[in-house]
Amino acid sequence: MSLNEEVELLRNIPLFAKIEPSKLKLLAFTSERLIYQDDQVLVHQGDMGDAAFIIIDGTASVTIDTDAGEIEVAIMGKGDVVGEIAILCDVPRTATVKASSKLTVLKITKELFFRLVNEFPQISIEIMRELAARLERTNAQLRGALSRGSGS
Amino acid sequence: MSLNEEVELLRNIPLFAKIEPSKLKLLAFTSERLIYQDDQVLVHQGDMGDAAFIIIDGTASVTIDTDAGEIEVAIMGKGDVVGEIAILCDVPRTATVKASSKLTVLKITKELFFRLVNEFPQISIEIMRELAARLERTNAQLRGALSRGSGS
Repeated sequence: MSLNEEVELLRNIPLFAKIEPSKLKLLAFTSERLIYQDDQVLVHQGDMGDAAFIIIDGTASVTIDTDAGEIEVAIMGKGDVVGEIAILCDVPRTATVKASSKLTVLKITKELFFRLVNEFPQISIEIMRELAARLERTNAQLRGALSRGSGS
Repeated sequence: MSLNEEVELLRNIPLFAKIEPSKLKLLAFTSERLIYQDDQVLVHQGDMGDAAFIIIDGTASVTIDTDAGEIEVAIMGKGDVVGEIAILCDVPRTATVKASSKLTVLKITKELFFRLVNEFPQISIEIMRELAARLERTNAQLRGALSRGSGS
């Protein structure tokens, strides 16, 4: 893939839509692109992690291990960011992320992540929105689980 | 309280620790300070909201309504931000926030919030960290609730 094609691809990711092409070239140069096959694991719940991933193509399944077994809490697709909690909070991975199709991701190291959010407020806002939306969904799941628990 | 005292107070909030005093003066001018008595409600789950709150002094209880009744999910204190999910995601308030002591907060309108995160990357990073930490805690509560649910 040519550099221009890479930049075009990055521009189609909402997170990067407002960043100028010259900066996106730099991003394409400094980040690593990885391809996972269906069912391959990107991150394991409990492991330490120093990178986040932006999905360029394909889908990934996010699961958490409970005493009741593995529960899928989200399906992520193109443009979604996964794995940023561990680099924001210095905690072990809070969930397992597994490719649920052939999956192409951009690997964003911790250092690059903080450079990006420092330089591009728009990226921060999108990530805050995503975290807030995820928190809202998780709260809804928790409300549901607690309500069911009381009824059983 | 003098303006200098206000600025000193804001500097003690981790969210603002790295912002220059001249900018903090502007913040002290443009944001509204509110005082709640113990048990007064700041935001009601389900209401629409267009402001976040930064706790300057005192504590607040965050509760969610479930079929099993009201459940306290967090206690917030000095320096904590509450109510930002509704302005980030344009969704109704996801929880009720109530003063659990005499409580002083800075009311940050949606417009001011986005101005702050655009201008000060450090604020974005702190808010992302807080959202990520809260998501991690909620995930842990969900794991617990789902595990208990399976055992009952």
